[in-house]
Parts: sequence; C-alpha cells; structure tokens
Amino acid sequence: MVNFSDWMLDIQQRMELTLGSYLEAPASDLAGLYEAMRYAVLGGGKRVRCLLAFAAGESSAASIDVLEVVAASIEMIHAYSLVHDDMPEMDNDVLRRGKPTCHVRYGQAMALLAGDALQARAFELLANLNLAVPERKLRMIKILSKAAGPAGMVGGQAIDFVNVGISLSFQQLERMHQLKTGALIHAAVMIGGLAGDLGQDREEILDAYGRQVGLLFQVVDDVLDAVASTELLGKTAGKDAEDHKPTYVTILGLDTARRFAVDLHKSAVLSVSSLGREGHNLVELADFILQRQF
Amino acid sequence: MVNFSDWMLDIQQRMELTLGSYLEAPASDLAGLYEAMRYAVLGGGKRVRCLLAFAAGESSAASIDVLEVVAASIEMIHAYSLVHDDMPEMDNDVLRRGKPTCHVRYGQAMALLAGDALQARAFELLANLNLAVPERKLRMIKILSKAAGPAGMVGGQAIDFVNVGISLSFQQLERMHQLKTGALIHAAVMIGGLAGDLGQDREEILDAYGRQVGLLFQVVDDVLDAVASTELLGKTAGKDAEDHKPTYVTILGLDTARRFAVDLHKSAVLSVSSLGREGHNLVELADFILQRQF
Repeated sequence: MVNFSDWMLDIQQRMELTLGSYLEAPASDLAGLYEAMRYAVLGGGKRVRCLLAFAAGESSAASIDVLEVVAASIEMIHAYSLVHDDMPEMDNDVLRRGKPTCHVRYGQAMALLAGDALQARAFELLANLNLAVPERKLRMIKILSKAAGPAGMVGGQAIDFVNVGISLSFQQLERMHQLKTGALIHAAVMIGGLAGDLGQDREEILDAYGRQVGLLFQVVDDVLDAVASTELLGKTAGKDAEDHKPTYVTILGLDTARRFAVDLHKSAVLSVSSLGREGHNLVELADFILQRQF
Repeated sequence: MVNFSDWMLDIQQRMELTLGSYLEAPASDLAGLYEAMRYAVLGGGKRVRCLLAFAAGESSAASIDVLEVVAASIEMIHAYSLVHDDMPEMDNDVLRRGKPTCHVRYGQAMALLAGDALQARAFELLANLNLAVPERKLRMIKILSKAAGPAGMVGGQAIDFVNVGISLSFQQLERMHQLKTGALIHAAVMIGGLAGDLGQDREEILDAYGRQVGLLFQVVDDVLDAVASTELLGKTAGKDAEDHKPTYVTILGLDTARRFAVDLHKSAVLSVSSLGREGHNLVELADFILQRQF
C-alpha cells in the first residue's frame, strides 16, 4: 500500500494536470477569461475535495480516469465559490493561497465571469464523463447541482452573509455550515463513490462519512482562523472575528470547539470502519483534516 | 390551430407558474436568497428563449410537462446572466424590465449569490427531468453547460467587456454575439427539440435555425438600442453607444444593420420550411423577433 503522503501528493499533482487540461482557451479571444479561470483554480490548495473523491472512489473500485474528471468538476465549483466569496461585495478579501485574490489580479468583472464560467464548466465535465452508465452521471449531476445551489453551498453563503454581526444559535450555525461547506464536501465523497460501482450499503456509509467530515472540516477551519497566523493560512487570518462572523469558536469557545472536532473525527472514522482496507484513505483523510495546521 | 398571440401568452403564463414553482424557498433561513432569485426571474420578459424551446419541442412532439422544465432551466441561465451583467463591475445598469436591477433592489452580494444559485438550479432541473431516456437528458446538459460557459455565453461577455471602447471588425463582433447571446438562444432551440424525439434531419434543421435566430435577435437588439426610448425598452436605452460598445449599428450603420436583420430572418424561415405545420411557431417566432419594438 502506498503511504498516505505519497498518495496525496500523487493526486495533487495529477489534479493540477487534469484541471489545467480542462481549462485551455479554445480560441485566442477567450485567453483573458481562461487565464483568470486558471489563476483561480491552479497552483494551490490542498485539494481536500479531490482527495475525498479519490478516497471514496477507491472504496467503489472507480477508475482513476473517471475520478480525475469527477474531482476536477468539484474543484471547479469550489474554486468559483472562493472567487465570488472573496469579492468586495462579499468578504472583500485580497489574499488567497498566499496570492492576490482573483478580482485583485484581474479586476472584479473578470473575476465575476471567471467564477460563472467555472460553474458551467464543472457541469459540462460531468455531462461528458467517460462512464458507461448514463444514470450514474445524472445522479452525480443531481448531487453536485443540489450541493452547489441555493439549497446547498450558495444558500449557506447567503445565510452567512445575512447573519454577519448577528449571534446564531449552535443549531443555526451548524445548519449554515452544513450548507456552506458541508454540502460540497459531502458531494465530493458521494460522487467520488458513484464514479465506481457503489452498492446501497456503501452509499449509506459514504453518506454518513461525508456529513461528518464536512462538519469536521469547518470546525477545524474556525479553530485555525482563530489561532493561526496569516502567513501559515495563506489567507487573511482572524477575518471571521474581525468581520463579526459567528463561528464554532465564538459560539462554543476554543476548547469546546476543539473537543467537538475530535468527536466528529471519531464518528467519521467509525462510519467507514466496516470498509476495512478499502476505507483506508478515508480514515487517513479524516486524520489529515483534524490535524491540518494551515 | 391556436393563433400565435394566444400561444405565446399561454406559454408566458405557464412559464411564470413553472418558474415560480421551482423557486420556492425550502426553508425560512433561505427566504432572502430565494426572494432575490424570484425577483430576477419572475414577472417580466418576453421569455423568447422559452418560446423558442416550446416551438422547437412542438416540431419533435415533446410533452408540455417536459418542455416547461427545459424552458425553465434556460430561463434561469438567462436571468442569472442578466443579474450579473447588470452589476456595477459589469454594465452598471440600474433598470431592467422597467424595475430596479437585482443588485439595486437586494444589494450586490445577494445579487451575486442569486445569480450563482440560479445557474446551479438550472442544471439541477435538467438532471431531474422526467424523461425516460437518460442519454437525452445528458445531451441537454452538455448543450446547456457548453452554451452557458466560457466557450459560450460567459466567453461572449468576457470578449464584450474586454473590447469596450475598441473597434471590432464585423467578424469579431459576430463571433462575440454568437457566444454572448447566440449560444443560449441556439441551446434553447436544441434542447427544446431534444425534449421530444428528434431525428438527425430535424436536428440539423433546428441547428441552422437556432444559429440564425440567435444572430437575428442580437442585430435587432442593437437596432432597438440605437433607436428606441428607455420607456419602451424597459431598460436604459442608448447604453451601448454611451458605453462605447461596438454594435451592429456602429459597425454597419443603421440601414445596413436593418437589412442584415431582414436577411437573417429570411434564412431562418427558409431553414424550417421543410417542417411544414410543425415548424409553424418557429416561423412565427422569427417574425416576432424581427418585428419586436421593445
């Protein structure tokens, strides 16, 4: 068995190539738009959603070729959401992955369009997936479009935006995060699994795991935002508190938020325990998400 | 046979209900986002793309139920593009369909999110379409995602944005419009046709017709922008010239632009002549697009 660090590095490098290959300008007059799209997607990030899709796909014997495209579609949705989230009318952030944000680099209009284009491209990738069973592609598109839409990621962003400066209950915060971050992470796990042959049992296992790591990811994110430095994060640290955004840390306190993360990690690992070796990298990823420092 | 005005009115009313039914907030904390989405989509517009989808679907014996959803998905893409196009970083327009634009009414952040959410929802509608043949749904998603994406509508917007104040050749202008407006109109015709059983011959007919009316629509739009009043248009008139945007009128002059429209109309009508009665509303729509005054 390949060790986890090598596995992760291999997928990260593989995804850089895959994403690049699907973001080549088809004509010279589109070079500017594609450059902004590439800037938003390439050269950075841990690719956690891609890693989750690959790990889930390993548990359903998915082919690497299909997983690359599936993971690329999720990553494009994720990247577009970051571009739009960073814009002045939203979080007004100037730094992302240690580089100027897309609108700082290319202007707001081009950032707006690059985000819009990435979303369409994500669905185009899934629709053109080289997979013999059309129903399975449609299920992936259903899952991704719901997770990315108003009852998923964008809905969570809207709740987040509306509630700046307002104190939320724990339940309201959890709901907001389930939509804003959790839905897409959950979708990454599910459509990664669906890239292979996923039975009912495994689907339920991935469903539970996906929900738990989605929440885990956000709790850890909130903890990191509260304690880490801008240099380590590669994005502006302490922004949540500064923006008066409710987070797990502001609601639970730092220690309880950390304990909550440990509990979520435990549940996620337990969920995939019956997969044995085939769930190996799902467990490793849960560890990785809990322990990440940046 | 129902007369054209009644047919058009019936579809416009039908689409208002259909669109509304697919834009109901699933939870109270999402009410704000869905309100902005509804505002962007409901209560206005000629629904030309919906009408084209219905007319194309009639030529392939598509069911009304399926056409409603197909047309709704196209209209959501169109509406999202208007919301983002009106934003301050793009056209900075404050009036649309005689009402304040979405960002004027709900703020820029909510307009950004409403547009993003509408795009995802459009693909969700197609993926969930009640159609027995999954391959046909996938073809629709391929067509719509390509038409809406960087090598389609968004690509055209990017070319348009980059070339403000620069004079384009006729070929460059045509290419820009084929992407910006033509691609989605063409997609409306194609996926409307695919909602029914479309043979190879009819597919080629719709393909040609779709390209011609797409261009026709834009030429007429440019003529109207040059000659009509803000009151008639329901959006700010004369904006193109004021923004130093290249248009068919600035490049060809008003008379030649009008003659070009007449020629395109003739070609579109000729393309569908072999469909006979089943192409009746496609002909009527070409007439309608040529003659529209607002």
